Amino acid sequence: MTRRQEILDTAGDLFQRNGYHATSMREIARNVQLQGSSLYAHIQSKEELLRSIVHEAADTFLAAAREVDASVPPPERLRRLVHAHLGVIRERLPHATVFFHEWAHLPAELQRELVERRDAYQAIFRDTIDTGVKSGSFAVEDPALATLFVLSSLNWTYQWLDPAGRLSLDALAERYASLLLGALGAPGRERKEQP
Amino acid sequence: MTRRQEILDTAGDLFQRNGYHATSMREIARNVQLQGSSLYAHIQSKEELLRSIVHEAADTFLAAAREVDASVPPPERLRRLVHAHLGVIRERLPHATVFFHEWAHLPAELQRELVERRDAYQAIFRDTIDTGVKSGSFAVEDPALATLFVLSSLNWTYQWLDPAGRLSLDALAERYASLLLGALGAPGRERKEQP
Repeated sequence: MTRRQEILDTAGDLFQRNGYHATSMREIARNVQLQGSSLYAHIQSKEELLRSIVHEAADTFLAAAREVDASVPPPERLRRLVHAHLGVIRERLPHATVFFHEWAHLPAELQRELVERRDAYQAIFRDTIDTGVKSGSFAVEDPALATLFVLSSLNWTYQWLDPAGRLSLDALAERYASLLLGALGAPGRERKEQP
Repeated sequence: MTRRQEILDTAGDLFQRNGYHATSMREIARNVQLQGSSLYAHIQSKEELLRSIVHEAADTFLAAAREVDASVPPPERLRRLVHAHLGVIRERLPHATVFFHEWAHLPAELQRELVERRDAYQAIFRDTIDTGVKSGSFAVEDPALATLFVLSSLNWTYQWLDPAGRLSLDALAERYASLLLGALGAPGRERKEQP
């Protein structure tokens, strides 16, 4: 890990725990065992740290969703998208938290850069739903609302997803996807029998 | 509206827009057209404002859910809970946003007070799901995860719910509840035909 990456990870942890505004550069420097002045050899400002963290988070979500093969049947595509999203939250929980929390307080210019990525991300889910409706895999009354619904259920998981929790990522993603497929009216969603 | 309530609403708006830490008492005073010193006749500190706002939000969510008759069939109970939750977010968007955003940065003592309310709120949804599974209205593999799923999909709506949006509260709640009932495997969920 480069020094810069170490600083980013430490800043991400501190921003997650205490919030961006309540975290000082001095505190970040102390946590990576640097003098404040040495810190500035690696990064320009606290805002630059925030920018790097939220860009990295946005890019990671988008890259993971783009890796999902768009040509597989929509229910399978949705399953893989759910797995990808939960995987990013699980692996990058501090950065994802900062991304979701500080979003609204970012400078306008930075928000614009992120909105593009968010829209691209949302479009992948919307396309999955539209394709599924067309092919008869999904029965959805309001695809725009269904897209917001799917993303809402996924985004909020950063609040409770415990990387050391009772379910593995695979099991969690499978169950979560099963709930979502039910919501989208996928007739053949797998469901284990009640005990 | 009392002067205190006016101060709370103004603080809620400012905390929502700029975050708690980035908002100064001076700014709050200016927005209610008071001198800083007069502000302190109504409230003790910025932290007291935050405490009042998040308590009010938590109490409003809990009161709305408790008003829902627990003896109606679980699908109808869930529909009403969805309506209640979205109604609170719609009516109290700034306070709800502060509640969700600042939660993690609240003093430990205040977090404990809120965790009790959150657990009570969550228990109402869990009870609805458990009752529905017992009565055969719902088919759910993992009721604990299904509860988190339902609350996740509801909580995140503060990010996009536009009180002036294309759907009325009733229409939005009905469609959102329909998606959730599908997720919970409710066989008789109403669904309009695709055009």
